[in-house]
Formats: sequence, structure tokens, C-alpha cells
Amino acid sequence: MNIKPLGDRVVIKKLQAEETTKSGIVLTGAAKERPQEAEVVAVGLGAIVDGKRVEMEVKVGDKVLYSKYAGSEVKVTGEEYTILKQEDILAIVE
Amino acid sequence: MNIKPLGDRVVIKKLQAEETTKSGIVLTGAAKERPQEAEVVAVGLGAIVDGKRVEMEVKVGDKVLYSKYAGSEVKVTGEEYTILKQEDILAIVE
Amino acid sequence: MNIKPLGDRVVIKKLQAEETTKSGIVLTGAAKERPQEAEVVAVGLGAIVDGKRVEMEVKVGDKVLYSKYAGSEVKVTGEEYTILKQEDILAIVE
Amino acid sequence: MNIKPLGDRVVIKKLQAEETTKSGIVLTGAAKERPQEAEVVAVGLGAIVDGKRVEMEVKVGDKVLYSKYAGSEVKVTGEEYTILKQEDILAIVE
Amino acid sequence: MNIKPLGDRVVIKKLQAEETTKSGIVLTGAAKERPQEAEVVAVGLGAIVDGKRVEMEVKVGDKVLYSKYAGSEVKVTGEEYTILKQEDILAIVE
Amino acid sequence: MNIKPLGDRVVIKKLQAEETTKSGIVLTGAAKERPQEAEVVAVGLGAIVDGKRVEMEVKVGDKVLYSKYAGSEVKVTGEEYTILKQEDILAIVE
Amino acid sequence: MNIKPLGDRVVIKKLQAEETTKSGIVLTGAAKERPQEAEVVAVGLGAIVDGKRVEMEVKVGDKVLYSKYAGSEVKVTGEEYTILKQEDILAIVE
Repeated sequence: MNIKPLGDRVVIKKLQAEETTKSGIVLTGAAKERPQEAEVVAVGLGAIVDGKRVEMEVKVGDKVLYSKYAGSEVKVTGEEYTILKQEDILAIVE
Repeated sequence: MNIKPLGDRVVIKKLQAEETTKSGIVLTGAAKERPQEAEVVAVGLGAIVDGKRVEMEVKVGDKVLYSKYAGSEVKVTGEEYTILKQEDILAIVE
Repeated sequence: MNIKPLGDRVVIKKLQAEETTKSGIVLTGAAKERPQEAEVVAVGLGAIVDGKRVEMEVKVGDKVLYSKYAGSEVKVTGEEYTILKQEDILAIVE
Repeated sequence: MNIKPLGDRVVIKKLQAEETTKSGIVLTGAAKERPQEAEVVAVGLGAIVDGKRVEMEVKVGDKVLYSKYAGSEVKVTGEEYTILKQEDILAIVE
Repeated sequence: MNIKPLGDRVVIKKLQAEETTKSGIVLTGAAKERPQEAEVVAVGLGAIVDGKRVEMEVKVGDKVLYSKYAGSEVKVTGEEYTILKQEDILAIVE
Repeated sequence: MNIKPLGDRVVIKKLQAEETTKSGIVLTGAAKERPQEAEVVAVGLGAIVDGKRVEMEVKVGDKVLYSKYAGSEVKVTGEEYTILKQEDILAIVE
Repeated sequence: MNIKPLGDRVVIKKLQAEETTKSGIVLTGAAKERPQEAEVVAVGLGAIVDGKRVEMEVKVGDKVLYSKYAGSEVKVTGEEYTILKQEDILAIVE
């Protein structure tokens, strides 16, 4: 991964929703409307508050839920990513 | 419960309003319009202010009243939850 | 009273305006439009500013004047209450 | 006076404009549109900033000019008052 | 001058623009549209920031340029003044 | 120059765009639409933050680029100037 | 490069998107809509927060992604640049 987000920003990649039908067929459909789930692929160094850097709460590989309209979508080497501030990440799904 | 909210966020689950009729029948209806009551199912570590983490006031299991339009609704493994900031929780009902 | 407001929030109960006619009859009418008077029934622990909790200025039993459109109305065990921030309370009436 | 304003709020009472006609008759008319002059009748303890209470600049008895649309009007025991924040008081008239 | 502005407020008096015609006649016309020039007639003690009073930059007698729509106009003993915050004064004209 | 801007304000004078045609004739036209270039003619003492004055980054004589809609235009002794906050200056052109 | 951005501003130059067709012909077309990629050509000294200058995260030569509508476009000696605040830069592309 070659994007290094600035400050308290995070780069995430939307997860494809896997749906398994009753017959066991896995349908790899489009991302569902709600919730928006993604995987963290890059994490900034953290915001600087009062001269000290605030440690980030998420790390690469975390599965996260985030506000659907947050962040900016970018396309790097053919892949779609979203760059958003950590405060727009609601929770880590474990 | 496998959602870990970030910062000063809290995950809550709306409570079904139980209504008992005069004849004693319990009607488990939809959540009433007002007030919005919920149970806390996960609590973030707290916001970081001036480099120190502010301890959360609510804990898992608390029954809370919250601003109806606050937070984001998410669906995790078939269950509906609301993720909101603690400041949008009005009070704990004891 | 079983509501514990969070932070610098306060739970108040609107006072019925008592009007005494010239003939001495007390008319317990609806709350008058202006001013909105209420009694404090529960007080939060206070907001945390710079890591220290700011002591609340109002206490349970205080009669207060408050901004009519402030706060959220809740109904708990059949009683109507308003939960609002202390900063929306204008004054204590002694 | 039985109103105790909270924080940096002040209770003021609008002054009736006294107009003296050429013949010497004093006309106690309604408060003139501009400026809004009032007398301070109660003063809060002051706002708390960084854990310290900021001393108020006005005191009971001061004649003040204030922003016409500031504050909330209240009626206590038949008298009209305005409760406003000290920052909405422009100046003391000496 | 009997107005004592609060905090970081300043009382100013608009200057009449004096225009001298080629024949030497001085025309004392209305204040011109742009720029708004005024003389400082009273200065507040200064705002309190972090418990310390910030010294004012303007003093009585200064000629100043100010944002035309800033401040409140008041009439005291028949004279028109403008009360505005020091931050709405652009510059001192020397 | 007899204007002393307050706080972190700066007085600038728009530069006439000089255009030299191929034949060497200098055309002193109106200021071009984009970018807005100007020369600093007066600099305030700097804003006061937390009781300390923040040193200004620009100095008299600097050529600067600034946001076209920033600041207030004033006319002093027949000359047009713009008074704006230093934060509305984008860059110094060297 | 003769532009020195103020505070936490950065001067960037949009990168032309190079597209190579299947036959190997390089098409130097206009910048594509999404993402907006640019090269940093000048960096300010950094914002001053609480009297201390905050070190910048980007440096001259960095390739960056930035919010499309951020910043001001300027033309200096025939070249187009964008001056924006570092906080409007989303990430460094390595």
C-alpha cells in the first residue's frame, strides 16, 4: 500500500458484502447500503494537539464501521479507497 | 458483543416498550416515539482532551435516554444498534 | 426520582401556574407561556473541563427559569420531565 | 429582588424614558427604540473559565446599555425583567 | 464622556468629513461612505483571556478606521455614538 | 504611510500589472483578475494568543498574494488600500 | 520556485495524468477528475499553536492527494499553482 495519510486520517477499503444463500451459494454483491464496513489499509501519524501527537486508535487490518458520507474517495493504481478522519470511524468490528 | 466504539462513542440497543393492558396481557410493541430508551452494549475508551483520556460516565448494561435523532444506526449480524457519542445521551434511568 | 442526567445536564419538572381569582378560588391552569418556571428534580455531576469536573450551580429543589425551547422532553413512569443543560437555565427564583 | 441569575448572566429592568415637555410636564412614556437603557437588578456569580470564576464587571444599580434583541424577557411577581449574558451589555452609563 | 464600555469594547464618534472647496469654503458634509473614520471616546478595560486581562491597543483620542456594519449605534444626551469591539477596528490613522 | 493596522492586520496596496508588449511598450493596465498581488505597506503588532504576541510573518515591502475577497478597502489621502488579516495572505512572492 | 506560502500553507502543482494506450502512445491529457494528484513545490514554516511552530508533514517533491475544491489557484510567471492549507492534503502517495 503506497498511500500515507496525513495527520489523523485513515485510508480504508470498502468490504464486499458476502451473502450466502440458503443453498450455500456465496453471492459477492455490491457493498450494502447500511452499515458501511471497511478494512483499514493505512493510518496517519495522528493529529498534533498542544504540540503532542495523539496516538491513533485504529491500526492497519482493523475492520471498521464508518459514516457513509464521510471522507473522500480516491482511486490509486486502479483500486478504490476512501480517505477519512479517524473521528468519522464509528467503531471497530472484532 | 463484537463492536468496539471509538473515542467517546457508545453502542446502544433500543429497548422494546412493554405495555401491559388492564387485563394483564403484555404487548411487546414497537419502540414508542418519546422517550427513546436504550441499553448500553459497548462503551469506547473515552475522548482524549489535552492528552488525557476522559473517563466515560456510562457503562455496559446502563439503561439510557437519548436524543432521538442522534447517532448512526448499524446492523451487525442481524441486530440493529445505534452508535452515538456519549454527549448525546441525556440521562441514565435507574 | 430515578433519572440520573449526564454531565452538566439537569432534569426539571414544569410547575403548574396557580392562579387565585379575586373570590379566592385557586385555578390550577396550564403552565403559562412566559416565563417557564420549573423545579429541579435531578442534577448531573457536572461537565469535565480540562480534566476537572465543574461544580453545578443548581441543586435539587431549586425553582428555576429556563429558555422555553431548550432541552428534551421525556416521559418517565407517566410523568413529564425536561432534560436540559445547566447553561439553558437562566436563573434561580428564590 | 428574588431572581438569582446563573453564571455570567445579569437581570436588568428597562428604564422608562422620562421626557420633559417645554412647559415642564414630565411624560413617562414607553422605553424609546434606541438606545435600550436598563438598570441592573441582579448579577450572577460569573462564568467559570479554566476552573476559575471570572469576576463580573457590572454590579446591582448600574445603568447599562444593551443589545436590543439580547436576552430573555421574564415576568416575576407582575414585573417585567430581562435576563441576559453580561457580554450582551455594551456599556455602563455613569 | 459618561459611557464606560465593557470588556474589549470601544465607544467611537464618527468624524464629519471636512471638504474644502477650491475657493476655500469648508463644507462640513455627512460622513462619507468609505472609509468610516471615527475618534475613540471611551475604551473598555479589555477582554479577560485565561484569567488575565488583555491590554487594549487603542486609546481615547485615536482616529480609527472601522468596519462600516460593526457595532451598535447609541444616542446619549443627544449625541450619536457607536459601541463596537476592538477587533472590529481595522487600523489607527495617525 | 500613516495607517497603523491593529492586531494581526496588514495594510496592502494592490500592484498595477505591468505588461510589456513585444515592441517593448509598457502597458500599465488594471490589476488582473487572478492572482491578486499587492505590496505590504503597514503591519500590525500581531495577535495576542494566551497573553503572548505572535510575531508577524510578513513585513513592509513584501510582495504578497492574497484571497481576492478578503479584507476591507479603504481610501486614505486619495490612495486605495486594503486592510486584511495576515491569515488571508496566501504567500509571499520573492 | 519563488512563492513562499505563509503559516501551514503549501504550494502544489497539479500533475498531468499520463495515459499510455495499448499501442504504447503516451497521452498527456488534462488532469483527471478523481483523484486530484499534485506535487508539492513550496511549504510554509508551519502554523503557530500556543506559541510553538508545528512542523509540517509534507516536504517539497512529495506527491500528494488533495481535496479537489480546496485552496486558491494562482498563476505565477505563466505557471498555474494551487495554494492550500496542509490540512486539505489528504495523503502522500509514495
